[in-house]
Amino acid sequence: MLVDHTTGDDAGVFLLDQGTALVQTVDFFTPVVDDPEAFGAIAAANALSDVYAMGGRPLTALAIAAFPESDFPPEWAAAIVRGGAAKLREAGCVLLGGHTVRDPEIKFGYAITGLVDPQRILTNAGGRPGDAVVLTKPLGTGVIATALKAGRAPEAAVAASTRSMATLNRAAAESALRHGVRAATDVTGFGLAGHALNLARESRLTLEIRPVDLPLLEGARDLALGFQAGGLKANRREFEPRVESGAGFEEALKVLLYDPQTSGGLLLLVPPENLAGLLAERPEASTIGRAVPAGPKPLALVD
Amino acid sequence: MLVDHTTGDDAGVFLLDQGTALVQTVDFFTPVVDDPEAFGAIAAANALSDVYAMGGRPLTALAIAAFPESDFPPEWAAAIVRGGAAKLREAGCVLLGGHTVRDPEIKFGYAITGLVDPQRILTNAGGRPGDAVVLTKPLGTGVIATALKAGRAPEAAVAASTRSMATLNRAAAESALRHGVRAATDVTGFGLAGHALNLARESRLTLEIRPVDLPLLEGARDLALGFQAGGLKANRREFEPRVESGAGFEEALKVLLYDPQTSGGLLLLVPPENLAGLLAERPEASTIGRAVPAGPKPLALVD
Repeated sequence: MLVDHTTGDDAGVFLLDQGTALVQTVDFFTPVVDDPEAFGAIAAANALSDVYAMGGRPLTALAIAAFPESDFPPEWAAAIVRGGAAKLREAGCVLLGGHTVRDPEIKFGYAITGLVDPQRILTNAGGRPGDAVVLTKPLGTGVIATALKAGRAPEAAVAASTRSMATLNRAAAESALRHGVRAATDVTGFGLAGHALNLARESRLTLEIRPVDLPLLEGARDLALGFQAGGLKANRREFEPRVESGAGFEEALKVLLYDPQTSGGLLLLVPPENLAGLLAERPEASTIGRAVPAGPKPLALVD
Repeated sequence: MLVDHTTGDDAGVFLLDQGTALVQTVDFFTPVVDDPEAFGAIAAANALSDVYAMGGRPLTALAIAAFPESDFPPEWAAAIVRGGAAKLREAGCVLLGGHTVRDPEIKFGYAITGLVDPQRILTNAGGRPGDAVVLTKPLGTGVIATALKAGRAPEAAVAASTRSMATLNRAAAESALRHGVRAATDVTGFGLAGHALNLARESRLTLEIRPVDLPLLEGARDLALGFQAGGLKANRREFEPRVESGAGFEEALKVLLYDPQTSGGLLLLVPPENLAGLLAERPEASTIGRAVPAGPKPLALVD
């Protein structure tokens, strides 16, 4: 076992032989959008992301489904499974089987197995002072999903968030590997702040983040103050004491630092000499800060 | 992909290279016993069983947990996880990670990945006329669990069932491979009849089963008539039309044919010349019938 669940990394890694390691992860959750096919695609993209975030290539998937016995049209189950299967195909990942249980609350996801070159694993450790902090997807899927549940999310915000969550992190991971990225994670339930803190701790750095440079989904800024679910508040309670915040930052941006993301982007520490090459290849990525030697707090908001 | 979910086999198989294939499976369920540590061990033994039933060696596990937010002592979660971890260790299987969700109903299990020699995979196909039908654990975990939920299971029955469910199918699978077994499955939710029908269909045989020779857990026969859960009845509705039954068989034994098993034994088709050797190695195994050329129905009860 090369990586287990104690380092905050996205998946476990198990050495098969000198040149090959298995990278494995499991994730499933309740619907974050109303469209069942899109939900299936998002569940697949989200589970696959942990393999990409480790520098791996997904091979196989096992589906994990909890579907209600009543008040649940069978065509919904079919649509969820179909949406997931299409996304797995896009990733070149084979569905080997799965398990379904009856449950009053819909849940869906996958256990994913991939292969990774043990010499090229992306972990939370390995960043260095001077590295650029790069985020490959905009923030805000949590506040938009919360607003959607309250019937208050603008259609354009839901469409942008759905598109983003269903996008594979494959291309971003390939670019990261090509451009010598040494440390990476994906941004999911702990929000940008929580996952950045993992990177900072394992790489023994402080990460300076510029709130004004955070990429945001359409509508996220407007919804941030009004639609904070329990997970967001719990993240803020837990992580804010480790964030050097100062004054003068817009509250909505500070809120979005803690917004739990579903199928969020990759958070990369990029050697400065490779930054331009990576950004040229990934125009959707944003430089949001830089790594500095470990200071009093592992995360610092700066102008 | 060598084996997928369409053949009724216990797990999916994915060819990594000429000499190595991954065998993968996922299973999780609600508690079948009151003791949380025993429940964890049973959940692990049950998930691992699918890998053993394919002739594989388990390597890694991902835990899948649904725990209630309230009315659920934290030491229960710890005991479930601990019981599972001890059983994984016994199997030489490494826990790489997992995912926990909040759920009013406790559920626990694992996604398991193993390795198997592609030349020596045990599938449902491969049995031949004349093979002996061998079962390696006694039947009755379903009716005993149902009686337990009703507060009506004798202590000795629960103890015997718990012990049986927590027993790994590793030794049974090793003996099967050593003694040239060509077709195998484990007996789980579809009961003996359902899994025997899979073997019969994929091996193109009829299996003759002698009800009087079925190995039974202590208490199972007495509980069979009074404690039939929905799963047992559904199995019987679904499978009995494909079973040549005749008259004169004790009703309790017929019921137990359809009893859904948790972490049940292996059901093996054993070449007759190898039967004595296998039984000498596995005294707990019972010969319950034999395979004959495909007749009018794929399963037949005989004296």
